[in-house]
Amino acid sequence: MIVVFTDFGANDIYTAQVQGRLHEIAPQHPVIISALHSVPDYDPRSAAHLLAALHGYFARDTVFLAVVDPGVGTERGAVVVQADDQWFVGPDNGLLSVIAARAKRSAFWRIRIPAEGISASFHGRDVFAPVAAQIATGILSPNTLESKPELDVQLGPEDLAEVIFIDHFGNAITGLRADNVPPDKGIDHNGSRIPSARVFSEIARGEPCWYRNSMGLVEIAVNCGRAADDLGLAAGHAIQLID
Amino acid sequence: MIVVFTDFGANDIYTAQVQGRLHEIAPQHPVIISALHSVPDYDPRSAAHLLAALHGYFARDTVFLAVVDPGVGTERGAVVVQADDQWFVGPDNGLLSVIAARAKRSAFWRIRIPAEGISASFHGRDVFAPVAAQIATGILSPNTLESKPELDVQLGPEDLAEVIFIDHFGNAITGLRADNVPPDKGIDHNGSRIPSARVFSEIARGEPCWYRNSMGLVEIAVNCGRAADDLGLAAGHAIQLID
Amino acid sequence: MIVVFTDFGANDIYTAQVQGRLHEIAPQHPVIISALHSVPDYDPRSAAHLLAALHGYFARDTVFLAVVDPGVGTERGAVVVQADDQWFVGPDNGLLSVIAARAKRSAFWRIRIPAEGISASFHGRDVFAPVAAQIATGILSPNTLESKPELDVQLGPEDLAEVIFIDHFGNAITGLRADNVPPDKGIDHNGSRIPSARVFSEIARGEPCWYRNSMGLVEIAVNCGRAADDLGLAAGHAIQLID
Repeated sequence: MIVVFTDFGANDIYTAQVQGRLHEIAPQHPVIISALHSVPDYDPRSAAHLLAALHGYFARDTVFLAVVDPGVGTERGAVVVQADDQWFVGPDNGLLSVIAARAKRSAFWRIRIPAEGISASFHGRDVFAPVAAQIATGILSPNTLESKPELDVQLGPEDLAEVIFIDHFGNAITGLRADNVPPDKGIDHNGSRIPSARVFSEIARGEPCWYRNSMGLVEIAVNCGRAADDLGLAAGHAIQLID
Repeated sequence: MIVVFTDFGANDIYTAQVQGRLHEIAPQHPVIISALHSVPDYDPRSAAHLLAALHGYFARDTVFLAVVDPGVGTERGAVVVQADDQWFVGPDNGLLSVIAARAKRSAFWRIRIPAEGISASFHGRDVFAPVAAQIATGILSPNTLESKPELDVQLGPEDLAEVIFIDHFGNAITGLRADNVPPDKGIDHNGSRIPSARVFSEIARGEPCWYRNSMGLVEIAVNCGRAADDLGLAAGHAIQLID
Repeated sequence: MIVVFTDFGANDIYTAQVQGRLHEIAPQHPVIISALHSVPDYDPRSAAHLLAALHGYFARDTVFLAVVDPGVGTERGAVVVQADDQWFVGPDNGLLSVIAARAKRSAFWRIRIPAEGISASFHGRDVFAPVAAQIATGILSPNTLESKPELDVQLGPEDLAEVIFIDHFGNAITGLRADNVPPDKGIDHNGSRIPSARVFSEIARGEPCWYRNSMGLVEIAVNCGRAADDLGLAAGHAIQLID
């Protein structure tokens, strides 16, 4: 299975080109598209924590084509990561580093970016998709690539005390794993306290709460409302835990 | 064929997780995604009428994974519905009840929701997707589930005289089937009359009309305009037929 | 491979119906969806130039189901186009004419639109999808259709000096092929000059530039900004080259 994890958006022309390349090389492999919200300031750091929470819900041997790549066309590296039983192909800009740091076993290989014959701005199609498809089919063994001891950009395994994603219901997903946050903690919001709940339907209509979401992350919601709009939250907003 | 009918939106992270689960269990079955508009107040009633109009355009033996589920995590039931030659898996909140009430033959089975090991907020991934995939592959015969004589929430077979969906062109789809509305009827709009037309290009630029849409429903459009914006229509808006 | 190129948008109910029809007839063929932005005034002319830039990134023998069809339900024709090694099925409204005019070899066949049994407004599902799927599987040989010497609406092979698409990053894609524009040319913007760059990260933050995009077209971007918003660009905006 190949999972495409990008910030290309759903209403655009880029994902289809990536899919086309994948199908051409790996016609037997189902391709799953995960189009993130298209926020102008979307950054590899938030995406790294989102992908780290998501990847466990896909089968072992899944190949992730992960492209959140504001530095495309600059000197940033390109990499294949093996983390436990899954594969990841993408830019070496931190995007894959949280998964690698949390994995029991990880390994890294450098992807050489050709000097010619590819676009300067769309490595998702021209560099990463072919490598991902070749790994999925077994045409390419990463062991034939140049191994590298560690990633160029490493964000570490720690949680990120920030909002990392606003979903389409307006809920604010943070980079904090709920296992690391006692349920009696609150989240500060301009001096008031957002308490925890099991599901947001437990709280009064219009009130905010935080809860363990379906990926195990701390998520802030407003019952029957849009937390992002009602509380003024966006990706990058710092989260402070309080008693 | 498995059709995913949800209000998860296209620019989000939930559909990919559902797809991942489906592919893992039913790798040979093509999966079709129908992401509805993401309106905060989207409700099972509107979606029930939309799904009832749509399902006939898919092949017999199609398995629909239908999730519009504001009550996830509460006591609402989960159900498998067989309606004529198709299968439906989703919450027992009315969503599947219009199809069932209009079918020549229907049958119902209860899905037991495990007390542990699943998320409280994402039964689409953790409960409904596995059941839908197992039915598609034949791993699961509904006859091994507990039969139930009727659905918990029943909306009945009647048309719904409301706007049920605004499409991306801004057209307002209603829950009225055009077969039940004589073409000489009009639709009241703040005291003025919206007449019928065969296609909206038959009417003057900027003028509204209603017509039988491609699913057989009464739909309100403005030629070269956006009916929802121009006429102030949204899901839930009541429709009154006039002479 | 079947590629669906439409203006149906991603958050809507139409693409799934087209996919359903394709899978029913051609279950072995992977289907790739390219949902364009949903702009009310989206026209076949802009889409014709976008498709002409995109199609080369898909494999030979690909069948494109191309539907940007504001005239559906009127007298416009329906056509199968063979252009070099690929197939195109859609309305004869100019959408496929730029590809045809630029191809080394092209051929045309008329699709008869049934007088009954189809919807007036959704030929994508009822007319074009079945033909595309039958060509992909080989069930239908175009040679059994009525050949036509040329397309009804012909836009010619020339570049289009207009913005043809705003992508989700806010970049403005034009219908000018970069091979035809010397890099020392600028683009006029209300009397000021937009210079070229290799990638937009070469220019100062907040400044505009034009560059060869990943499809070989001239594209206007603002480094770390949204060109469409910052410069007031939309599809249809005329582009003037200056020294």
